[in-house]
Amino acid sequence: MTKKQQTAARSADVARLAGVSRSAVSRTFTEGAYVSDETRRKVLEAARMLNYSPNAIARSLSKRATGLVGIIAADLYNPVHAQMLEAMSRSLQARGFGIVLLVPDTSNFDEFIPRLLSYQVDAVITTVATLDTHLPLAAVQTGRPVVMMQQILGANVLNSVSSDDYGGGHAAGTLLCETGHRRIAYISGRSDTANNRDRERGLRDALAAHGLAVYAQANGLFTHEGAMTATRQLLSLSPRPDAIFCANDLMALAALQVSRGEFGMAVPDDLAIVGYDNSAPSMWSWPALTSVGPDMAEMVSLTVDMVVRKIATGDATVEHQVVPVRMVERQTTRERPTA
Amino acid sequence: MTKKQQTAARSADVARLAGVSRSAVSRTFTEGAYVSDETRRKVLEAARMLNYSPNAIARSLSKRATGLVGIIAADLYNPVHAQMLEAMSRSLQARGFGIVLLVPDTSNFDEFIPRLLSYQVDAVITTVATLDTHLPLAAVQTGRPVVMMQQILGANVLNSVSSDDYGGGHAAGTLLCETGHRRIAYISGRSDTANNRDRERGLRDALAAHGLAVYAQANGLFTHEGAMTATRQLLSLSPRPDAIFCANDLMALAALQVSRGEFGMAVPDDLAIVGYDNSAPSMWSWPALTSVGPDMAEMVSLTVDMVVRKIATGDATVEHQVVPVRMVERQTTRERPTA
Repeated sequence: MTKKQQTAARSADVARLAGVSRSAVSRTFTEGAYVSDETRRKVLEAARMLNYSPNAIARSLSKRATGLVGIIAADLYNPVHAQMLEAMSRSLQARGFGIVLLVPDTSNFDEFIPRLLSYQVDAVITTVATLDTHLPLAAVQTGRPVVMMQQILGANVLNSVSSDDYGGGHAAGTLLCETGHRRIAYISGRSDTANNRDRERGLRDALAAHGLAVYAQANGLFTHEGAMTATRQLLSLSPRPDAIFCANDLMALAALQVSRGEFGMAVPDDLAIVGYDNSAPSMWSWPALTSVGPDMAEMVSLTVDMVVRKIATGDATVEHQVVPVRMVERQTTRERPTA
Repeated sequence: MTKKQQTAARSADVARLAGVSRSAVSRTFTEGAYVSDETRRKVLEAARMLNYSPNAIARSLSKRATGLVGIIAADLYNPVHAQMLEAMSRSLQARGFGIVLLVPDTSNFDEFIPRLLSYQVDAVITTVATLDTHLPLAAVQTGRPVVMMQQILGANVLNSVSSDDYGGGHAAGTLLCETGHRRIAYISGRSDTANNRDRERGLRDALAAHGLAVYAQANGLFTHEGAMTATRQLLSLSPRPDAIFCANDLMALAALQVSRGEFGMAVPDDLAIVGYDNSAPSMWSWPALTSVGPDMAEMVSLTVDMVVRKIATGDATVEHQVVPVRMVERQTTRERPTA
């Protein structure tokens, strides 16, 4: 069987599994061809399950590589996103790529898609978790590799390099239980993100393993301001929580400000605080913040490797890589008792 | 069908689907061309549905303009630089430009110059003050407008939009004198920067106007870590300073950590602290940081206006614009006595 026949046969498999026509499969993988969102979703999911990639050689013939990678970034006031952007940029530059930076407004996603196409980037990397799924899914339509530096809910058809959010939440819960806390509260991030969902699930499982449930919970929306309000709510309870786990460092800094400045609490004696991201600001506060987070260099390295490989080979299989996290104990938690 | 015909045909498809003229489609994708919001919306929606994108690189060949602006950024762990990059990117995007991001390593400046040329950007903007002058000076050789978001020592041949560093240093000194401090220390930034030179000069002049000199000085190199060491040096003096002005917010956060955490001092009662930049982290600490800094939106607006004008007119005169600063008094300084 020739290469062409093989591809045709496999394309038919995808069509059958997706419940669509072969032409719809072809159109899904052809730049400029129209296909409905629903059909595209079915095809991409079937393609992923069958490990199907359209004829890479034919595509590469028509592909003119520009040596440019698009990075979609946002929320750079949060240093963890800015640090990720800088590390990613340096790494891509070291591999000879140029960077086209795109900073979407939630209001203008639609303008971004033709723009993204017009730059003819060889690949697209997204560095923020709070994106609408529309944009990365649209980026897939460019036919170029798209890698997300996190899982986005409902976008499993996209490549991702994410951190072990479940493991991170679990580590935070375990630390707080092992240092003797019984009323452990949670300040959540945006509830429409996989980050928040998985961190919370890890926390709950760790507490359950110690016979505890989450004492109270408030949504800080991943912002400093949101967490100021959330902390005030949690500390108005009677009795107050004796520990707060926050779904990112910015929110943990807000919890630190409010608990000390407004409620006069001693940290960690009256209240332990654990953040998430292990970003630069966790080292800037006094007391310095205990935080759990991924190895950023490892995330960047895996992402760049994946992008370079997919550009070179045209490999269209969808991959998910998960980077382990580590707990960095600083001054907002008590020392663990030695065994 | 030739490539050109194909493109034309696809532009006609977009026009038909959007229910507008081909000229309206063309104008939507041409920088500076007028098109109503409603027409633009229809065209972009049709373009998205048809996966149509004008070929930006091909267009640039005929216009001798790429619609790309190069931004040279670095030190994004410092939120003031990251916020500046985000604001600048959004503003350029709103004006129809794409952004090529360059994050130089001090070790590879020479590689950056041919790279910068190869992207054929229409202009270059630098957002960091600590750059070697070599890179922006080399950028000038591209014949494109180069605008620096600060003054760089020895580079007066380059356009700049900077903040009033002298005025900022003067305002910090004046505030500390007026709130009754007599032993005012300075944690400087890198001594090879105009930022540091002008902030220090403003501080000294303000103190002199109150019959004071700088009590003591240590170099924090604009870094958090450098300022931890600098603060320890200053607080080991006898008697201790009763106020510290720091040449950026990161260093002021370090002064806050060390004075409270290591020396047990009360801020602002035992020690007042003033930062510089009025960046996001000045709001994240407890007590929140008093800080002086420029209106970032104004700096971005002036820079983009200058870049757009110079691209359009080819005007090669060198311009320097200076944006005023404002003092934001938070919790690390005492209230000024009312007159």
